[in-house]
Amino acid sequence: MKKVTIHIMPKQGVLDPQGKAIQTSLNALGFSEVEAVQTGKLVELFVEEHADIDRRVGEMCDKLLVNPVMEDYHVDVEEAVRP
Amino acid sequence: MKKVTIHIMPKQGVLDPQGKAIQTSLNALGFSEVEAVQTGKLVELFVEEHADIDRRVGEMCDKLLVNPVMEDYHVDVEEAVRP
Repeated sequence: MKKVTIHIMPKQGVLDPQGKAIQTSLNALGFSEVEAVQTGKLVELFVEEHADIDRRVGEMCDKLLVNPVMEDYHVDVEEAVRP
Repeated sequence: MKKVTIHIMPKQGVLDPQGKAIQTSLNALGFSEVEAVQTGKLVELFVEEHADIDRRVGEMCDKLLVNPVMEDYHVDVEEAVRP
């Protein structure tokens, strides 16, 4: 079994109001060293062993998980046991 | 400037309906090798150099970013330029 972790972030220049809200809140709490915040999504897939896992995961991102107009992503694959 | 990446995932046993919905959709699209899905959040902070960055980020997570009842997190720190 493989664990596939997909990191999805808004593309450069896309507005991220949640990130802006977090930055404002952290600054208000006294964390003035925080100068920018971006938020994104994590998707962990637990996948049966498959010869062509990278291509299959690319298809999953294109068809369902990622909006290519707004978002960039990268993928890590590691060995795992089922959660 | 440091880039601090916080990976926030639901704790083991906490219901994750979004993950379940993604799994069902992927299976319906023909990706039958996907056996479990978990979703989480990514928060990237761009932070001024600070002597005690690990402790400060821990405080940010405790005070604002993470719900310790429902969520686990881990933190990566790396050098970065401001986005």
